[in-house]
Amino acid sequence: MLGLMQHWPLLCHKIIDHAARQHGRREIVSRSVEGPIVRTTYGEARARALRVAQRLAADGYRRGDRIATLAWNTARHLETWYGIMGMGGVYHTLNPRLFPEQIAWIMNHAEDRCLFVDLTFLPIVEKIASSVPSLGRVIVLTDGAHLPATALANVVAYEDWLAGADGDFDWVSLDENEACGMCYTSGTTGDPKGVVYSHRSNVLHAMMAAQPDAMGVNSRDVILPVVPMFHANAWGLAQTAPLIGAKLVMPGGRMDGESIYELLDTEKVSFTAAVPTVWLMLLQHLEETGKKLPHLKRVVIGGSACPRAMTEKFEKNYGVEVVHAWGMTEMSPLGSLGSLKPEYAGLEGDARLDIKEKQGHPPFGVEMRITDDDGNELPWDGKTFGRLKVRGPAVASSYYGGAGADQFDADGWFDTGDVAHIDQNGYMQITDRAKDVIKSGGEWISSIELENLAIGHPDVAEAAVIGVAHPKWDERPLLIVVRKPGRTVTREALIDYMAGKCAKWWLPDDVAFVDEIPHTATGKIQKITLREQFKDYRLPTA
Amino acid sequence: MLGLMQHWPLLCHKIIDHAARQHGRREIVSRSVEGPIVRTTYGEARARALRVAQRLAADGYRRGDRIATLAWNTARHLETWYGIMGMGGVYHTLNPRLFPEQIAWIMNHAEDRCLFVDLTFLPIVEKIASSVPSLGRVIVLTDGAHLPATALANVVAYEDWLAGADGDFDWVSLDENEACGMCYTSGTTGDPKGVVYSHRSNVLHAMMAAQPDAMGVNSRDVILPVVPMFHANAWGLAQTAPLIGAKLVMPGGRMDGESIYELLDTEKVSFTAAVPTVWLMLLQHLEETGKKLPHLKRVVIGGSACPRAMTEKFEKNYGVEVVHAWGMTEMSPLGSLGSLKPEYAGLEGDARLDIKEKQGHPPFGVEMRITDDDGNELPWDGKTFGRLKVRGPAVASSYYGGAGADQFDADGWFDTGDVAHIDQNGYMQITDRAKDVIKSGGEWISSIELENLAIGHPDVAEAAVIGVAHPKWDERPLLIVVRKPGRTVTREALIDYMAGKCAKWWLPDDVAFVDEIPHTATGKIQKITLREQFKDYRLPTA
Repeated sequence: MLGLMQHWPLLCHKIIDHAARQHGRREIVSRSVEGPIVRTTYGEARARALRVAQRLAADGYRRGDRIATLAWNTARHLETWYGIMGMGGVYHTLNPRLFPEQIAWIMNHAEDRCLFVDLTFLPIVEKIASSVPSLGRVIVLTDGAHLPATALANVVAYEDWLAGADGDFDWVSLDENEACGMCYTSGTTGDPKGVVYSHRSNVLHAMMAAQPDAMGVNSRDVILPVVPMFHANAWGLAQTAPLIGAKLVMPGGRMDGESIYELLDTEKVSFTAAVPTVWLMLLQHLEETGKKLPHLKRVVIGGSACPRAMTEKFEKNYGVEVVHAWGMTEMSPLGSLGSLKPEYAGLEGDARLDIKEKQGHPPFGVEMRITDDDGNELPWDGKTFGRLKVRGPAVASSYYGGAGADQFDADGWFDTGDVAHIDQNGYMQITDRAKDVIKSGGEWISSIELENLAIGHPDVAEAAVIGVAHPKWDERPLLIVVRKPGRTVTREALIDYMAGKCAKWWLPDDVAFVDEIPHTATGKIQKITLREQFKDYRLPTA
Repeated sequence: MLGLMQHWPLLCHKIIDHAARQHGRREIVSRSVEGPIVRTTYGEARARALRVAQRLAADGYRRGDRIATLAWNTARHLETWYGIMGMGGVYHTLNPRLFPEQIAWIMNHAEDRCLFVDLTFLPIVEKIASSVPSLGRVIVLTDGAHLPATALANVVAYEDWLAGADGDFDWVSLDENEACGMCYTSGTTGDPKGVVYSHRSNVLHAMMAAQPDAMGVNSRDVILPVVPMFHANAWGLAQTAPLIGAKLVMPGGRMDGESIYELLDTEKVSFTAAVPTVWLMLLQHLEETGKKLPHLKRVVIGGSACPRAMTEKFEKNYGVEVVHAWGMTEMSPLGSLGSLKPEYAGLEGDARLDIKEKQGHPPFGVEMRITDDDGNELPWDGKTFGRLKVRGPAVASSYYGGAGADQFDADGWFDTGDVAHIDQNGYMQITDRAKDVIKSGGEWISSIELENLAIGHPDVAEAAVIGVAHPKWDERPLLIVVRKPGRTVTREALIDYMAGKCAKWWLPDDVAFVDEIPHTATGKIQKITLREQFKDYRLPTA
């Protein structure tokens, strides 16, 4: 027996329709790439998105075509998304921080047919356009006056191009499971893998994010998504903000402390979100200038673990609530957020910071479990850690073209590649990457926890822990240390220092002192290189 | 091109799974029908719902079977819902306030196969069971010790029945468009009409209701749904509360001021919802006892228009924010809520009360329009009123069995039967029922606005306005008045009093003084009877 309820497919253009109808005069304020602050509204953004859709259709682009964007967070970028989706196209965000060859690889893999690009990134496109044969039009997100001379063929200024459409267009009628967006993840190994969002997944994700214990934003909020739209949909805020009718403040290309502070202050931002690096810059700017944050109520911090000291500074010095979050491009991206359930709402001081160090709990629409290597589910006791697996309507079921199939279980669980424990109240904490865990005699040792212990020693500048082959235990931990200049801490002193602070069998079997530990472009320890470097290392216990 | 996201159907049992997993120890506190306050948790409620599902399946009930409930708001009632839905059945809430013959008619129309019933309502079932041939088991929501002697066949006490199941059961795998619930609307004319909710519509409705500008409840809230589960799903709170993990307080059968106050106080309720009648009783109790409401933050008032004085009392005297809401059984039921958008958030005094008199704005997932009789859309100017039509994933597409087909447009809009205006910020205000509007020369006159004007005269005890046939204008308004005892206000004095307070052509053509105005069982003016009574009335202008 079927229900007798309306067929109302979950389509992304309904979000901008709702925003225009119900919050039509709510502002979108952007720091433009050209320089000045520009202001528009949801009503105008929808009208322009309709023109984008109409103009794309007139250019011959069709349902299912991948239309790339290489752009900062601005109102123009936002309206191209809704225009692309509303004509049945698939927005494909490109990350300008990748090497040009990687961008070209990704564009070819996705077969992008058209590109919206900010002035800033035109040089990248000039470099790669000839190696992307599928690429047709290149639309530069500016007006004719700002369009620079370029050797590129088929280039047009956005405002000139848009002038050819009057907006008399109906959104294309679609099935909610059709693709609407695409984003590639660039792992540390292998080729990038394409995640393909559907209209349904994006709309449900926006509704999940709007839950009060998730982003919890409302129409009276002023939202500054510092996290870029090319970084996993600006954590969904490009859809969540119009869905709930909040004013949007878009930072354009300037993410330094002073620029972000200026927007927080002049636009009275109440809610913002970004990676820890951005907040380090802001906190430094505040400390240097003695400025405060009287309007800001909440900051969502994710992308990598939020340091305890950062949470403490925001909450204690500036009265801003920190919401520690975790997610993945494959999850649209929200996985968990650290809003406080009643069990924890009354905590203060260190006890509160202990909880805030965790990555939080999933909203309705994200299921989580932790398992051992055989897929057996592990208990939620806040200690036992295992492979973190997730399921939900906004979680990828596969990658574009079928790559990485081993990350998807037969029963629908996606293996995040992270290792985590979950406590009895559902708060998850990432303890390691699965590939970095040391597997000793069938048991797991967290490399990150050992590194955090070692770094506490006053003579240690940096520490990394990797597993090294062992005839009896399969793997045992090796601690690799960079000493602070002039310090002379020994192997024995370090292991003594760590003893008692972790399980005895977790203690490293040896310590190697090095001058430098290799890092990735984003500053993370390059464990692959370390493992390569120490692959023939013979432990004294072996 | 399809998205590559997981197939994760929107099924109601996922709500109780999430609540048990993420908020497993959060309490559900009920005033039991037997008397005492009883406490359980989401974790226990899910475990018992699994046993309900298993036991129903063991009894031979199957996917699609309608399983009726005739019960107050208690944890037991809640767990039967999730159990019924989780075995693929369709919960069918019966309204005990209807006449027994109406209940029997509805049960026969739905072909209910099983019934969960509270002790309170057993006499009703004894009266009608023999006239409902489809009915199998009758499960009384109590334990063996409390089960009274009854002549009914096939009766069992819930706890005894449940003891036959150990909970080792998997929720039935379903398509999200399958039916999960049913509720009949009892209009003032014609037979009751069945609304059939789907799993998808119930889940989406719960997510819509959880938006911060809708119910806006979070896991730290304590929710008291005074509005019954048999009254349009307790306005969705039976799904929304577990979805966001709020503590639930269930009032059982006692809705008087003292009983409700006791729960608000002892359980520290922060959020509650009910019709104005309930709040009149509570406010009277507070005034008589001098008690305050220190824990309560928000109250949702709907079902009928919330009087301005009630809003003022809650907000001014008790510091409780009033959220005026509107909905229909056909809308699952939420249509609009009066949370304040930034345009209105700063208003105080009368200006704030003016906005709070409106029924509010729809969340994402409800589309609204107002049209004239020819279906042309009317402007949103806060004055022009027209037929209110709605669309959305939790709005009915038809009634069970195909009744009332004329309420559904070809383009998918459901005609609510209400007349409303909508202002430029999307706030809707009901001005009349479509069938009560007076159609004079092609223009509409609101009967309710004229009644509100007339009632302002100090000599008027009650007033009703109906349209009476007119040879030139089709209809003209007739004002029907009950004078206060001993007062002698005349036709001319009344019309003079109203002149200048509305458009001149709205003024009633005549006034009829009567001793009494007929009312429905719920206290509304019975306009059908009045129209019948005055059907041959000859206006002096005719």
